[in-house]
Amino acid sequence: MGSITKKIAVLGSTGSIGRQTLEVVRAFPQRFRIIGLAASKNLDLLAEQVNEFKPRFVYFQEREATSLLNAECDFLPLEEIARHPAVDTVVMATSGASGLLPTIAAIKSGKKVTLANKEALVMAGEIITREAKLKGAQILPVDSEHSAIWQCLEGEKQGAAQIILTASGGPFLHFSPAKLNKVTAKQALQHPSWQMGQKVTIDSATLMNKGLETIEAHWLFDMPFEGIRVLIHPQSVIHSLVEFRDGSVKAQLSYPDMRLPIQYALTYPERLPNPELPRLNWDNLRSLTFEQPDFDKFPCLKLAIEAGRKGGTYPTVLSSADEIAVELFLSGRIRFTDIAHLVERALQQHKSVAQPTLEEILAADTWAREKVSQLASGDSSC
Amino acid sequence: MGSITKKIAVLGSTGSIGRQTLEVVRAFPQRFRIIGLAASKNLDLLAEQVNEFKPRFVYFQEREATSLLNAECDFLPLEEIARHPAVDTVVMATSGASGLLPTIAAIKSGKKVTLANKEALVMAGEIITREAKLKGAQILPVDSEHSAIWQCLEGEKQGAAQIILTASGGPFLHFSPAKLNKVTAKQALQHPSWQMGQKVTIDSATLMNKGLETIEAHWLFDMPFEGIRVLIHPQSVIHSLVEFRDGSVKAQLSYPDMRLPIQYALTYPERLPNPELPRLNWDNLRSLTFEQPDFDKFPCLKLAIEAGRKGGTYPTVLSSADEIAVELFLSGRIRFTDIAHLVERALQQHKSVAQPTLEEILAADTWAREKVSQLASGDSSC
Repeated sequence: MGSITKKIAVLGSTGSIGRQTLEVVRAFPQRFRIIGLAASKNLDLLAEQVNEFKPRFVYFQEREATSLLNAECDFLPLEEIARHPAVDTVVMATSGASGLLPTIAAIKSGKKVTLANKEALVMAGEIITREAKLKGAQILPVDSEHSAIWQCLEGEKQGAAQIILTASGGPFLHFSPAKLNKVTAKQALQHPSWQMGQKVTIDSATLMNKGLETIEAHWLFDMPFEGIRVLIHPQSVIHSLVEFRDGSVKAQLSYPDMRLPIQYALTYPERLPNPELPRLNWDNLRSLTFEQPDFDKFPCLKLAIEAGRKGGTYPTVLSSADEIAVELFLSGRIRFTDIAHLVERALQQHKSVAQPTLEEILAADTWAREKVSQLASGDSSC
Repeated sequence: MGSITKKIAVLGSTGSIGRQTLEVVRAFPQRFRIIGLAASKNLDLLAEQVNEFKPRFVYFQEREATSLLNAECDFLPLEEIARHPAVDTVVMATSGASGLLPTIAAIKSGKKVTLANKEALVMAGEIITREAKLKGAQILPVDSEHSAIWQCLEGEKQGAAQIILTASGGPFLHFSPAKLNKVTAKQALQHPSWQMGQKVTIDSATLMNKGLETIEAHWLFDMPFEGIRVLIHPQSVIHSLVEFRDGSVKAQLSYPDMRLPIQYALTYPERLPNPELPRLNWDNLRSLTFEQPDFDKFPCLKLAIEAGRKGGTYPTVLSSADEIAVELFLSGRIRFTDIAHLVERALQQHKSVAQPTLEEILAADTWAREKVSQLASGDSSC
């Protein structure tokens, strides 16, 4: 194909986005070379990946275990891989706050960062976008919603007048508040349209995911919160829309399959034919529906937008409190509706720092995690 | 606004597209200057327009009547206005075959042609696109469908893999064949979503309009007929879609209002805020539906696609036969379903010329008109 081979590090290679990234890489062996692989879980899968892609660098959370990999590659910490000169593109496929420091390391080294990790931009959007501008690093969104917005903006001389983020609404869209109180982790993990990792699946069910994406969109597209709205679209076919200043609206559509936005970010500005990717079948697509989000039934969305508007360390507390609350829910220690309660209480008790440094963000992260654990253990009714 | 003022001739200024073009011009007095106005009907309105916009040139079908205009502008034939050096942008807002020669004159003079006239490209797509390439003339589509496709393609490095033209389906979408037989001109002129001229409204009801647009899309976007499909979308909110080779689909949406595609063509590559243009209201937009077109109930669509595939002078015969058939229907002389029958019989009896010259196209036009008049008067069952 004649193009320069991209040298890629996949951080979070054994997770859902990481595995799908490697599927895309596998489809275009001439285009991509895997330089680094990093994972925090699933050593067996990492070993398989290392065996197949033969990266120069590898990271696993338990360093001693990497000796089991039996491969000729060097162990490097996450941030070292992210900033290594042999790497030109970093796929940030981790979920949670652990993505923050490697993202910043990659950006400061001027890499192309294809960003699936939500927390980095939510916690440190100002620092990341400022550094990216300073160092000429490109942030290429991999979230299907932000990829849709990016695709709709491509080639436009003027930016968006309004961004409309679509949300499936999750598995509990029309549950009554009483019924919501009783949902189990197993139910919440059954997303109606997307196959995703556990954290983001629960966040989809609470609509926290859409709140985090609103904050991300604010930073990625330099859009005030007043210019971003959330629209429930249960079929997950329209991945988001952009309204321009003449009133024209563009939308991006596809079946829910993360390989498409991953591939778009990796091959941009080209598009490549990939027979593995499903094509919309208009013989079966009869109806696309839309409704307004219910902010009362899904308070996480409101909490996120408020935290985003207020700025400072509020978005960090939102995101980190949510991360712990989701873990507590998944392990059966709190109810589904407690996730929002815990996040709300953490936000209420937080003393935000305006224009925080990275250290202040990390301190807020630690504070929020401890606070939520405390609230959850000390007060069973929270 | 600092931009260069566009010098515009509006051919067909008293028709639906012409009037809406002048509304857009009126909204941006610094941007546009009307150099020429031309009409075939409605002298009173033309006089008002001349009075308001003070063009240098005017044309009216009955030349002697222009003395009544009482204005300080010169009478010029349509084609002279289209190619005049004082004009840089020609808005082809006429309907019917009369748009062909002025369109070619404008293209040959290297003008920007914002094209609402369908027949020119249908009859002489090969000549027009070849000449445009040769002379560096830009053809900017004004049809909402082609504008949508154009907007979706903007900035994309690769062209479309598939074009999906949406169609409202017209007022008779779910009529039985027996009921279709009996529809009146008055019923057919009541389009469910668009306010348009009479010819295009009837063509929308027979789906001939979508057939003509398929042929236009073939020429405008250099797309084989296999790559163009028609999708019924009764709400007329998605104006068309483009599928790219990675499977990603982009769509353009807005309420049905021709001023948006007209303005986009006139201000391209910029978009300008215009408070007159309606914005989509997502509080009311609940559902967008899609269905497959019924080629048996609406044979004009099939006839058009077949004529487009065969090429030669078939598309001219299709278009000109339809023009006469629609006139006959509007004047109550044939039934709604006879429109397709007459067009079909004209196509069957036509001896097509491959890669026709302009003269051969004009001869096929004359032949088709006479043939349909003959068929209609000689054979009441046709």
